[in-house]
Amino acid sequence: MKKFKPLLSIRVKKVIIHVVQLMKKVYLDYSATTPVDPKIIEVMVPYFKDYYGNPSSIHEYGIKAQEDILESRKCVASIIHAKTDEIIFTSGGTEADNLAIKGIASNHDHKKNSKGAHIITSQIEHPAVLETCKYLEKIGFNVTYLPVDKFGLINLDDLESAISENTFLVSIIYANNEIGTIEPIEAIGKITKKNNIILHTDAVQAVGKVPIDVMKEHIDMLSCSSHKIYGPKGVGALYIKKGIKIPPLFHGGGHEKGLRSSTLNTPGIIGFGKACELGKKRLQKDNAHLIKLRDMLIDNVLEIEESYLNGHPTKRLTNNAHFRFTAVEGESLQLMLDEKGIAAATGSACSSKKLKPSHVLIALGLKPEEAHGSLRFSLGRTTTKDEIQYVSEELPKIVDSLREMSPLWKK
Amino acid sequence: MKKFKPLLSIRVKKVIIHVVQLMKKVYLDYSATTPVDPKIIEVMVPYFKDYYGNPSSIHEYGIKAQEDILESRKCVASIIHAKTDEIIFTSGGTEADNLAIKGIASNHDHKKNSKGAHIITSQIEHPAVLETCKYLEKIGFNVTYLPVDKFGLINLDDLESAISENTFLVSIIYANNEIGTIEPIEAIGKITKKNNIILHTDAVQAVGKVPIDVMKEHIDMLSCSSHKIYGPKGVGALYIKKGIKIPPLFHGGGHEKGLRSSTLNTPGIIGFGKACELGKKRLQKDNAHLIKLRDMLIDNVLEIEESYLNGHPTKRLTNNAHFRFTAVEGESLQLMLDEKGIAAATGSACSSKKLKPSHVLIALGLKPEEAHGSLRFSLGRTTTKDEIQYVSEELPKIVDSLREMSPLWKK
Repeated sequence: MKKFKPLLSIRVKKVIIHVVQLMKKVYLDYSATTPVDPKIIEVMVPYFKDYYGNPSSIHEYGIKAQEDILESRKCVASIIHAKTDEIIFTSGGTEADNLAIKGIASNHDHKKNSKGAHIITSQIEHPAVLETCKYLEKIGFNVTYLPVDKFGLINLDDLESAISENTFLVSIIYANNEIGTIEPIEAIGKITKKNNIILHTDAVQAVGKVPIDVMKEHIDMLSCSSHKIYGPKGVGALYIKKGIKIPPLFHGGGHEKGLRSSTLNTPGIIGFGKACELGKKRLQKDNAHLIKLRDMLIDNVLEIEESYLNGHPTKRLTNNAHFRFTAVEGESLQLMLDEKGIAAATGSACSSKKLKPSHVLIALGLKPEEAHGSLRFSLGRTTTKDEIQYVSEELPKIVDSLREMSPLWKK
Repeated sequence: MKKFKPLLSIRVKKVIIHVVQLMKKVYLDYSATTPVDPKIIEVMVPYFKDYYGNPSSIHEYGIKAQEDILESRKCVASIIHAKTDEIIFTSGGTEADNLAIKGIASNHDHKKNSKGAHIITSQIEHPAVLETCKYLEKIGFNVTYLPVDKFGLINLDDLESAISENTFLVSIIYANNEIGTIEPIEAIGKITKKNNIILHTDAVQAVGKVPIDVMKEHIDMLSCSSHKIYGPKGVGALYIKKGIKIPPLFHGGGHEKGLRSSTLNTPGIIGFGKACELGKKRLQKDNAHLIKLRDMLIDNVLEIEESYLNGHPTKRLTNNAHFRFTAVEGESLQLMLDEKGIAAATGSACSSKKLKPSHVLIALGLKPEEAHGSLRFSLGRTTTKDEIQYVSEELPKIVDSLREMSPLWKK
């Protein structure tokens, strides 16, 4: 018998390993971040080990990096129909938002008149825009936070009414990061253009999913990020329309036309460029795939009793499905899904550790308990029908079990 | 004959390829940037493709990233003897410098008294500190730029004399990025501590080459960067001593204790952590290797007639050899070295495209023509004796040929 014990133990271990391997892993949090596309990793790696020169250096190593960064800049410009020299590389979307909004704001003296220079934004912005506006408000600027309807859309009449002679900036998110609602940016652009006001948009979630044309849509400044479109983290860009002058956030060596001093992150930028190139090329194919699976997920989930879709039924990101469930805590739902190998999100990743209900859901008119009962699934390029099927099977069981424990659920 | 033409052409091509392959490549610009250590690439890559979760997410993917970032934070803290929670990750040294200096400055109202709140820095700072101080000067702060001696050292008596009751910050570079001179930070720290003034140091070039102990040296804030120590570009850190409060540069999701909103760059941070771990472990070995080769290079180069070493003979970075040559243009020298496959630098990479003479060399008391006749070689972990030998052979020939063309050179 002694002889068999260790053998049995190895067998048990093998079974455990087998079970763990069998456990499904379904990542449905692509709006928080995406894996880097293997094709993108492949083009990036040589810039870590071979083409590592500082792009500011004027020797062979530096010039190689410089030239290749130019190609990436072209790809980033191209996906939003901007000109190559209108792209400033940053460390991500948050920096781009801060650079744009604080930059334009610092061209305006908020102390000159008692009412303060005026910014218009919405109540459902990403924190990078919202907190920046709150900061500017604190130091003397006047900020209007436009409300949204129950689908998350701003009202164009509200926007026109809010504009005053002091308004110098409108910043509206292109597509909301939580509920996926796509704002009418082109119509907003017509209004800002007519009123000679700068239009900035946080398009972090929209780029690669919505075809964007900054010229046609009268966008003056646009923030985007690499890690939401299968590129690496730590890199983003701000498009600044030619002619618009802003001061930098970082002072230093004068990189990026003096707008963003710091050694350029060559591998990151190369990866971001490739992500834009692929994103542009695959836009239609990706969207067709995403819409099919998203709608399948929505149909399946809405079969659950007292479940609702948050956000707009049609004007929404192709990869976003955001639900609420009566008498269920979103966080408990997320944790139980996680145990089943399914990654989803309550709110955005940026505020996922805060206990306050999502400002976006509150702005839709949801009660705090409804906001807390919400959950976001965001799909990606590699999401499969099988994965959606698995979630569609597991989710109702989890909702049921949570409701059984809830005093708020009708028995 | 016709038959042989294409064959010959292929042969010629092959010979050319062979010659190109044979051409030595000697990278001696490690102070501008370093290749990423293969061991570091190896640990980074899984974070692009497998462990890609947003570290703010509370599912399995996010928690994995979060935990591993904590390990990296420990490594970064450890190399400067800081506490783990005193490290704020940034996009690089420039952002860290801006965050530190603008942060502390914004705690002080420069408009309260006519003389302005007072900052002390040196004339030989990196542009990230220098330009930030110039910006603060423009908006009302009072800044003293301490002079340096002919070796690049600041004088401690000058520092003490410059301190006034309005002084709230001293920012002195740990080791100069151009000439490699190491400043007496511990002695400076004693003075700032005695006077209850914050001490910030840009230690981008020093980390990994000089053993640093922020506690022992009374450093309150320290900037460092990954890509100077064989880690990836696009990531750096600011050490902020516990208890010091500063506002952020980026507003947003509240990452990094609210000091640096933005999705954390997991692969970059993992790479930076590994770079610090290796850097700390290899410090003595690396320095022994670097000193041997650096001194060999210095000895060989100083055999050239009318050549001089810039910077301090002993208080200098182990990898820095900075020279000037009478009647020779540094830029021409750099270009001709580049043709021989040797990468060196005039000034820092950050200002290499500007035609102004280096502010560092001018601060040493060099004439503009002497500053323009200067060249920096910076060695690295993988620099070999053969490479130093090759440079030692090629450089005198290039200097000679340039002098032959120079009207300034005695015939």
